[in-house]
Amino acid sequence: MPRSDFLETLYGMTAHASHSDDAITDVDAYMQRLGQQARTAAARLRRADTASKNAALKAMAERLDAARDAVLAANARDLERGRENGLDAALLDRLALNEARVDAMIEGLHQVAALPDPVGEIDGLSARPSGIQVGHMRVPLGVIGIIYESRPNVTMEAASLCLKSGNAAILRGGSEARESNAAIAACLREGLEHAGLPEAAVQVVATTDRAAVGRLIGMPEYVDVIIPRGGKSLIERISREARVPVIKHLDGVCHVYLDASADRDKALAIAVNAKTQRYGTCNTMETLLVDAPVAEDLLPALAAAYAEYGVELRGCERTRAILADVAPASEADWAAEYLAPVLAIRVVDGIDDAMAHIERYSSRHTDAIVTENYTLARRFLAEVDSSSVMVNASTRFADGFEYGLGAEIGISTDRLHVRGPVGLEGLTTRKYVVLGDGQIRQ
Amino acid sequence: MPRSDFLETLYGMTAHASHSDDAITDVDAYMQRLGQQARTAAARLRRADTASKNAALKAMAERLDAARDAVLAANARDLERGRENGLDAALLDRLALNEARVDAMIEGLHQVAALPDPVGEIDGLSARPSGIQVGHMRVPLGVIGIIYESRPNVTMEAASLCLKSGNAAILRGGSEARESNAAIAACLREGLEHAGLPEAAVQVVATTDRAAVGRLIGMPEYVDVIIPRGGKSLIERISREARVPVIKHLDGVCHVYLDASADRDKALAIAVNAKTQRYGTCNTMETLLVDAPVAEDLLPALAAAYAEYGVELRGCERTRAILADVAPASEADWAAEYLAPVLAIRVVDGIDDAMAHIERYSSRHTDAIVTENYTLARRFLAEVDSSSVMVNASTRFADGFEYGLGAEIGISTDRLHVRGPVGLEGLTTRKYVVLGDGQIRQ
Repeated sequence: MPRSDFLETLYGMTAHASHSDDAITDVDAYMQRLGQQARTAAARLRRADTASKNAALKAMAERLDAARDAVLAANARDLERGRENGLDAALLDRLALNEARVDAMIEGLHQVAALPDPVGEIDGLSARPSGIQVGHMRVPLGVIGIIYESRPNVTMEAASLCLKSGNAAILRGGSEARESNAAIAACLREGLEHAGLPEAAVQVVATTDRAAVGRLIGMPEYVDVIIPRGGKSLIERISREARVPVIKHLDGVCHVYLDASADRDKALAIAVNAKTQRYGTCNTMETLLVDAPVAEDLLPALAAAYAEYGVELRGCERTRAILADVAPASEADWAAEYLAPVLAIRVVDGIDDAMAHIERYSSRHTDAIVTENYTLARRFLAEVDSSSVMVNASTRFADGFEYGLGAEIGISTDRLHVRGPVGLEGLTTRKYVVLGDGQIRQ
Repeated sequence: MPRSDFLETLYGMTAHASHSDDAITDVDAYMQRLGQQARTAAARLRRADTASKNAALKAMAERLDAARDAVLAANARDLERGRENGLDAALLDRLALNEARVDAMIEGLHQVAALPDPVGEIDGLSARPSGIQVGHMRVPLGVIGIIYESRPNVTMEAASLCLKSGNAAILRGGSEARESNAAIAACLREGLEHAGLPEAAVQVVATTDRAAVGRLIGMPEYVDVIIPRGGKSLIERISREARVPVIKHLDGVCHVYLDASADRDKALAIAVNAKTQRYGTCNTMETLLVDAPVAEDLLPALAAAYAEYGVELRGCERTRAILADVAPASEADWAAEYLAPVLAIRVVDGIDDAMAHIERYSSRHTDAIVTENYTLARRFLAEVDSSSVMVNASTRFADGFEYGLGAEIGISTDRLHVRGPVGLEGLTTRKYVVLGDGQIRQ
């Protein structure tokens, strides 16, 4: 299929490869071409056998290994440009690649190759009174658009998961990582070529023009689902404007409720871990709810533990009656996703009060109860309306790898199609298959 | 919860009840109120036990039985108005209720009550290396908006399926059936009240103002999914403008491919049944594909059978070389959904040619192959990208009841969430449930 001279330059990967989107003047036409090429590739990928897909993944890993110097050099140019443009330390850290991170990408490709292929799976065939047998077969979604920022390894992760699940991918990374992403994508495409799979199975949007995003999310004739990964405002904007279905989560306002019946050790361990194991993740606890009868016992012990980690506490009146030096929590605190060592604490009166608070403030991502009461555990599991609901486990377990999916392309808090951590299966759908012996309908 | 005087009049169900939406001047505010009430009801329905829901369904059936005269009288007023407004015979037939159709509605309510309740089902819990057990629990979607035309029994069908699956329903029927729908809805609400379930579990949009539809499909904060049932232009418009996810199918351009290896009797029986068993349904075959080696043998026999049913044939050049008096088929015929006794026929060269035609022209609803070849059967099942794919069975089997779903609220040809006939399960989603014993993440 035709390539513009620009793409040739980009994927030619010379030491002095520089990015210029002057060559792409008609963004609409460019995006439409990407879309058509993706659809064509998807029709072939749908039929690709597991061996070919795994061969491509392994070839991608080999190419990445062989090209690591070029990839790191491209990344160095992105970092240089980032520093010139005033990116802060946290952003530069997300942007940076090093030998260890390249190794992790290579390892990731091998891991995806080792995953079972969900495509073609038939989960059962039931015999109907008419004589037909009816079941479901798992098939790829088709074309997946991934819009992301900063982290170049997402290029590899997203492309490999889409490929393994038989989907074509259109990748739109952040402009700050454009040379890194292009370098990684070149390795991915060489891997596809090696395995005899279509090059357009993985396409990188090669213009930084913002209009390209608008087109990507607005062309349902070519794209079946959009997966945005990045900050809340990016995801909100995309969700609002997309005409293509979006798999996303907006917030991670997660709760842990310590019931009066809770085992003390479990309560303390989970409440500390859910906040402090990592602060910037979407499944980090942001509000702790403590059942009144055990507040006087648990809160001082927790406060001491949080102090060791340097976690700032904000509490309701009843919390502050027990703990000194805790700032008052406002409405804004109950709704806040801090992504930082800050925790809101509220004393509640039993499970109904806790669930009412969760119903009101939770972002429906992950919420947990610590309890030894069988009935309350079952009620919490049944009644809390979140994508992950837990009993006696840290909210930090809401993760594709921890759940056994072997991968995670994102987390969804939406209700349709897929909910919670999204692995390979979330990138597929099912169709009905019917096996007959000549049956006709009466 | 508060009711306007208008709603009181509507549901008061006097013999002279007349519909007037003069009382609803602020459609936006009215729809927002419906949405809020639906959300509140949904939160309660989510926790409703199976016994309550079944009690409500049975009470609805009893109320409908007791009120049949009033329902039929309301329907007579709709028919009178319809005749005055020039509705044709087919539309009046769809609109009309009679004793038998009321009986069918009552029976339908009992059938839904007898279905297993999908809510709360946990399909398995897997132990992870971390020690947590992870599984999925099935839960309602929340609030479902159903937009439909003509047939008053859809009011009962949709409401009962939504209720059984724990969802709140907002029903927007056609204005031609407004008195019938209001009368049926009154019975539904009395059933809810009898079982102690919230009245707003089933709400009928009581204004014929078109702006109400625009609000319904544009309020994702209150509505989780829209199910439109009606003509293609209605569904297209709704899909284009909706901000709420839509479960729909647009076209039913279905194919049957008769392979050279097909058993002759099965081929003839299926090809005739898939076209003639019913003409106006979405799973009716619209194009027949015949493998060249068996065209000369099969086509005359098929033509004779179709002639008995009065089916008009349109064929490609090779078809017309075998059959006399067949009009030429154009591009438009390959893409057409006739919903009538008309059939397009094309002679093809093997399965790849057949699948290429299907890939191009199918609406991805239902496509079938008749073959005795194992390998070709498996290829067809794997490679045809439709919501239902069949071997040696009539396309007319693509139906929720035939598939064993026990119900059908619609058919979806979309790829996300649910595909093919949509039963109770399609009105639910799943969340992750995690059972731990105090595990924390390392």
